[in-house]
Amino acid sequence: MTNNLQLNSEGKLKHFLTIDGLDKGLLTEILDTAESFVGMSDQQIKKVPLLRGKTIVNLFFENSTRTRTTFELAAKRLSADVISISIATSSTAKGESLLDTIRNLEAMFVDMFVVRHSISGAAHFIAQHTAPHISVINAGDGQHAHPTQAMLDLFTIRQYKKDFSKLRVAIIGDILHSRVARSEIQALNAVGVAEVRVIAPKTLLPAHVETLGVTVCHNLTEGLKDIDVIIMLRLQKERMASALLPSENEYFKCFGLTEDKLAIAKPDAIVMHPGPINRGVEIDSKVADGPQSVILRQVSNGIAIRMAIMAMAMQKQGASE
Amino acid sequence: MTNNLQLNSEGKLKHFLTIDGLDKGLLTEILDTAESFVGMSDQQIKKVPLLRGKTIVNLFFENSTRTRTTFELAAKRLSADVISISIATSSTAKGESLLDTIRNLEAMFVDMFVVRHSISGAAHFIAQHTAPHISVINAGDGQHAHPTQAMLDLFTIRQYKKDFSKLRVAIIGDILHSRVARSEIQALNAVGVAEVRVIAPKTLLPAHVETLGVTVCHNLTEGLKDIDVIIMLRLQKERMASALLPSENEYFKCFGLTEDKLAIAKPDAIVMHPGPINRGVEIDSKVADGPQSVILRQVSNGIAIRMAIMAMAMQKQGASE
Amino acid sequence: MTNNLQLNSEGKLKHFLTIDGLDKGLLTEILDTAESFVGMSDQQIKKVPLLRGKTIVNLFFENSTRTRTTFELAAKRLSADVISISIATSSTAKGESLLDTIRNLEAMFVDMFVVRHSISGAAHFIAQHTAPHISVINAGDGQHAHPTQAMLDLFTIRQYKKDFSKLRVAIIGDILHSRVARSEIQALNAVGVAEVRVIAPKTLLPAHVETLGVTVCHNLTEGLKDIDVIIMLRLQKERMASALLPSENEYFKCFGLTEDKLAIAKPDAIVMHPGPINRGVEIDSKVADGPQSVILRQVSNGIAIRMAIMAMAMQKQGASE
Repeated sequence: MTNNLQLNSEGKLKHFLTIDGLDKGLLTEILDTAESFVGMSDQQIKKVPLLRGKTIVNLFFENSTRTRTTFELAAKRLSADVISISIATSSTAKGESLLDTIRNLEAMFVDMFVVRHSISGAAHFIAQHTAPHISVINAGDGQHAHPTQAMLDLFTIRQYKKDFSKLRVAIIGDILHSRVARSEIQALNAVGVAEVRVIAPKTLLPAHVETLGVTVCHNLTEGLKDIDVIIMLRLQKERMASALLPSENEYFKCFGLTEDKLAIAKPDAIVMHPGPINRGVEIDSKVADGPQSVILRQVSNGIAIRMAIMAMAMQKQGASE
Repeated sequence: MTNNLQLNSEGKLKHFLTIDGLDKGLLTEILDTAESFVGMSDQQIKKVPLLRGKTIVNLFFENSTRTRTTFELAAKRLSADVISISIATSSTAKGESLLDTIRNLEAMFVDMFVVRHSISGAAHFIAQHTAPHISVINAGDGQHAHPTQAMLDLFTIRQYKKDFSKLRVAIIGDILHSRVARSEIQALNAVGVAEVRVIAPKTLLPAHVETLGVTVCHNLTEGLKDIDVIIMLRLQKERMASALLPSENEYFKCFGLTEDKLAIAKPDAIVMHPGPINRGVEIDSKVADGPQSVILRQVSNGIAIRMAIMAMAMQKQGASE
Repeated sequence: MTNNLQLNSEGKLKHFLTIDGLDKGLLTEILDTAESFVGMSDQQIKKVPLLRGKTIVNLFFENSTRTRTTFELAAKRLSADVISISIATSSTAKGESLLDTIRNLEAMFVDMFVVRHSISGAAHFIAQHTAPHISVINAGDGQHAHPTQAMLDLFTIRQYKKDFSKLRVAIIGDILHSRVARSEIQALNAVGVAEVRVIAPKTLLPAHVETLGVTVCHNLTEGLKDIDVIIMLRLQKERMASALLPSENEYFKCFGLTEDKLAIAKPDAIVMHPGPINRGVEIDSKVADGPQSVILRQVSNGIAIRMAIMAMAMQKQGASE
């Protein structure tokens, strides 16, 4: 029982907006469900009829071919009908007209919105205002959350490292602006890893970052000691312009992950990145393509995790109707 | 028996281009067919195999996410394959190259064109020149016709008001430039409503509008007396620039539908709008979201009506082949 | 047995990148397979479940609504799931980032890439670097090859002319820049036509064109004598600007196919064009729409040929897994 917007009265997943407020039990249920979809992708027929006759609307107010494609593939492999709508942010500057867009799509009997928006809180806003039978999945909102990315990272970690409780995980890079980092810190803490360590220059860390449940380090060489899992963040080039950072070269020298730096972490450490990677900026190609990199595995797992979350959120519907 | 381009030799629907020339019997058949699809949208599996293996091409020479989406959803729920093609009007300035586009798509064995075009008569032109087994649905052509919108409005009216013959319907706003208004006037007259009353400033009425079978009123307060159904039209902002209208504020004061104005109509009058609405321009939010508004029901009915029209036009095909 | 990148160790089709290196036996197998799909398009249900559960990605780095649509239709009629991705060439200027795009899509468990790219060799590059279970179809790369177009042309010729070995085929127009011409010359020679004759001004012919296995003629009137099959090429308007050609009018006078010119060829000669046609530039409307034109039949055959090539390349997969 919970009053979390994301759960129905029986504590089942209804929306998937943020990791915040979800407990280890539910996160584990998502991981276990995703497990059942992983094998499927290798089969001749990569399709299950779980969501046949359901309509899923990809509502992308911010452009992202990669994320849109994974959600579209996940939906199609669940046999749902998918409509992708790209909406220029300009035309929805007013909250009112965003609501009108939602109301109209609702009236067309859609079952799920997958929402990406440049404004933090957009997916929550839609979930709060949409019809009760519709599920909302957050595919990234502003600098707030990217919970499906955090779940696929958790899933990938579990494939390589058995026991979460023993793990030390480093998240490296622009923590300040990263919705991915925010969701990952919450997810890692929810499943009870031994330590989440953020490694970044001071200018790329939020104030009072310790309150998020992390240890802080400003030096990559020091920070990588004893680390089992390394999560690199993508460096948004526009941060350079905004004078938060000196130069790409300088950044790579201090915080770029090279083979030398990687050797400081535990020998069986895995290297993750949400993509797309900036080779030679936050990560060296030798590391990105090296034996410890699980970056492409993350992409694969993204399909299975999104299938799991979509299927679980829809199951709720089946039950409540 | 008829020589109407829209009907085959047995009087069955083949194309759906305009309300003009269709009789009450056929319009009623469309409404009754749509009825059978309305319930379906609430079911777990919103899909029927009626058009499985058929190929429908959404041919949009004019941009419209909303209309394209409803046609795409309607087609998918009939299990058809849908391809949406957006074509910049510029590249088809010559009628010749429009024909070449059509000929090429025909040769790919498509079964239906859903056409939206900024030029009046474009859907007719395509229907006249396309291969005999292909159906054409007009999704809006210039200022000429938008017959599926008129049918979903008729369908919505029938859900709330039993007997067409007793109804007084007001259409309010820019009648002059509205393909929606033109098709609605024809549809309402075809089913035999008691009165179609157009309410608009003189600058937004066509010359000799009475010949269309309407009564005319230039004053909203007077015009709303005894009205059962109110159809608001969207005010195209570009009309302001063209000096046909003084200002948005001025327009709202004279022709905007507020709660006060609405109270003049019959107490059980319903309020309709083809969308997207301009809140505070042609309609007040309190009315748009109020208990007499059936605007979102119109959107829902748009799916059922389009499914009905597509299925009926295709049935013709089945018979003739 | 062959070390051709396009064939697997058993000599079966794995990728379809170029006609070069494919023998008459394989080309004939493709034509025969396409034959079985031709009738299907006339049926009520134009769908076979051959590729159900397979994921095909249309990867278009160069815009082409027409070619994208035919591949999308072909894939849907084989019951595959299709995702179309348009990628601005700019964002993939570096080969590295093209590879990262491919690696990511691979990781999403796709089965086939259909690639169009403005750079010659792009499809080969992707085929060389993609995962072993993925098939790559070249939908046109730079000025190098357009092998599915050549196959549909061959298929169309076979429908009208029984015996390849007796045929004299003229290819007319901008041979120099045409990937279509290059693939056609290879295909026609592979099946052993009596003569491939290229007819063009010197400025639109590659150096040493004879080494491709063609006879050369610079005069249309002379060149059309004894010809069974006429293949017109589209004149890219931008060639005019580049001073390779005097003017559209001048070109039409010398190399445009008119009824008069057509009369020089054999009386039962057929006229082909890959489309879209420039009426009055390389071909007169009377010829394009006349009784000897098979241009629209080519479009229809394009669906069947692409279905055949996709199905055959996937069959290989089925066997090897």
